[in-house]
Amino acid sequence: MTSEATETRVMDAIRERRELVNEAIDEELPVDEPERLYEASRYLLKAGGKRLRPTVSLLVAEALADVEPLSADYRRFPRLDGGEVDVMAAAVAIEVIQSFTLIHDDIMDDDDLRRGVPSVHRAYDLDTAILAGDTLYSKAFEIMTDTGAAAEDGLEATNMLASTCTKICEGQSMDVCFEERTEVLPEEYLDMVKLKTAVLYGDAAATPTILLGADESVTDALYEYGISAGSAFQIQDDVLDLTVPSEKLGKQRGSDLVEDKETLITLHARQQGVDVDGLIDAETVEEVTEAEIDEAVAELEAAGSIDYAKETAAELAARSEESLQVLPDNESRRLLEDIAEFFVTRGY
Amino acid sequence: MTSEATETRVMDAIRERRELVNEAIDEELPVDEPERLYEASRYLLKAGGKRLRPTVSLLVAEALADVEPLSADYRRFPRLDGGEVDVMAAAVAIEVIQSFTLIHDDIMDDDDLRRGVPSVHRAYDLDTAILAGDTLYSKAFEIMTDTGAAAEDGLEATNMLASTCTKICEGQSMDVCFEERTEVLPEEYLDMVKLKTAVLYGDAAATPTILLGADESVTDALYEYGISAGSAFQIQDDVLDLTVPSEKLGKQRGSDLVEDKETLITLHARQQGVDVDGLIDAETVEEVTEAEIDEAVAELEAAGSIDYAKETAAELAARSEESLQVLPDNESRRLLEDIAEFFVTRGY
Repeated sequence: MTSEATETRVMDAIRERRELVNEAIDEELPVDEPERLYEASRYLLKAGGKRLRPTVSLLVAEALADVEPLSADYRRFPRLDGGEVDVMAAAVAIEVIQSFTLIHDDIMDDDDLRRGVPSVHRAYDLDTAILAGDTLYSKAFEIMTDTGAAAEDGLEATNMLASTCTKICEGQSMDVCFEERTEVLPEEYLDMVKLKTAVLYGDAAATPTILLGADESVTDALYEYGISAGSAFQIQDDVLDLTVPSEKLGKQRGSDLVEDKETLITLHARQQGVDVDGLIDAETVEEVTEAEIDEAVAELEAAGSIDYAKETAAELAARSEESLQVLPDNESRRLLEDIAEFFVTRGY
Repeated sequence: MTSEATETRVMDAIRERRELVNEAIDEELPVDEPERLYEASRYLLKAGGKRLRPTVSLLVAEALADVEPLSADYRRFPRLDGGEVDVMAAAVAIEVIQSFTLIHDDIMDDDDLRRGVPSVHRAYDLDTAILAGDTLYSKAFEIMTDTGAAAEDGLEATNMLASTCTKICEGQSMDVCFEERTEVLPEEYLDMVKLKTAVLYGDAAATPTILLGADESVTDALYEYGISAGSAFQIQDDVLDLTVPSEKLGKQRGSDLVEDKETLITLHARQQGVDVDGLIDAETVEEVTEAEIDEAVAELEAAGSIDYAKETAAELAARSEESLQVLPDNESRRLLEDIAEFFVTRGY
């Protein structure tokens, strides 16, 4: 299939589920007292987002239960043993965790914008942003403990969500530390990406298998799917920062280089002897010229660093597709394959 | 019993359990990678703390199981139906949540000191403090989902911990909002105290009843015990700030007044027509004189506001002791009564 056809199928699958996910977010996170706290907590969730992780969860449930896509009520989804479970609640819990991490990360990175709107600590203030994140954190656990799953499964899914959150904190901490270290190995970077980004995809893919009552081997395989696909997604992000025109990217191309952010590409280049710190003279994205970035990219290309990142991402995507073989061969499984494919072929 | 005798008994009960709690904290929160993150996460827990909430949890378990105090292994504690459960892990989870809230609250209140050492955002930095709090948050849920309780009980205890955390965030948000509001009712203040402080005592007291498999009515009663006792504790704090000499208090007496912090006392005084904002001219605790504070306290006393707070705290303590009547009549239950008593008779 062409990458355009894959993209269309993935975008359709996301769009078809997004309204349902957004409705469920509203139901699970009503505006309560104190109003300002709940508005700040919901602010980023209302500002947009593709709902990639919930889509992965819902597709895994459909693939595993082997039902026609969109034919079953996600709120009363058939378990493998005949009971029912609210897989939508679990999907929302994971998106709520994602939103909490964005709010706190934006504080740590001092980012002013997110999803085209001011970040929470800019739109409100630091205290409210810390507290809005903390509120989403506990709300996610309230939601995950209330899916109507068999108690052992609910407890296992909640334990997995908790250990996922711990790993995300570890990954964020590594990322912050990397900024102060002179030498980081590509393998260490991949470990960081796994913790900071990929484990939440792992959780999104594995949770429905737990709640539906699948075998442990299925849960493990789906967790690996999420880890590989999520890592591929992040590495592709690093590639796109250098290869996509600024207009299409929505920000200055090469901004990672200008801002001295290490990626798999720069770390590989360092190992090849490239003087990464000397690639760009400009100090800010406003100062840098397209010509300067072209030259830097050419040097990284010559060192094989961009190809290395592309190949690493492609390998991870292929590995993630292999993990899906524990699922019945059906339309939803093919969409999960498409998502992994899309993660590394997407042009923005 | 005299209040000194009560205090001695409570302090003994705490001291006898503190070493065990501290050992369990070390076991449940080992230093992992990244080291700096885990050191920052453990920093306040290692700096001290009475372990009041864990002591409440352990005493409730002992009272309910009707075992000799300190005779049973908290890690393999007898359930009412004959099984075993790790009540110590649950107690640690609650203390870990307490520590997370202190770290994030200190950021919001911009407090430099905590337990006699620099607060985490001062000892480390803002980013590390946010992340250390977030790490403790998820660790607490990892621990609470792994007590070896029956799955339904483990899930219920985890759900209660999550909703408790949501309430704490709501309470902290109300507290922050109160600083900007011109008029707050005493009832609103009591609501805030309930959410910000008391619910975690409610959780500490109710959780062991869930994990041991007690009836819902017992869980409800113990939750109420914690709510009443925890609220009484906080109100007594407000009284002590005005009535205990600075040397004994470890900080300037009347600092709440100097810093314009509303308490049940000032809110009651406002209702009695006292010009609370005019009580103290000094802008900082360094400037204020003992004579100025004496005069302010005399005015609050004349308005009946200090007595009102004392009576409210005493009523709450009495109510909390009534809630304990669902427990067997034994030594541990008497210690829980003593704790409630101590909360309102303590002199510091």
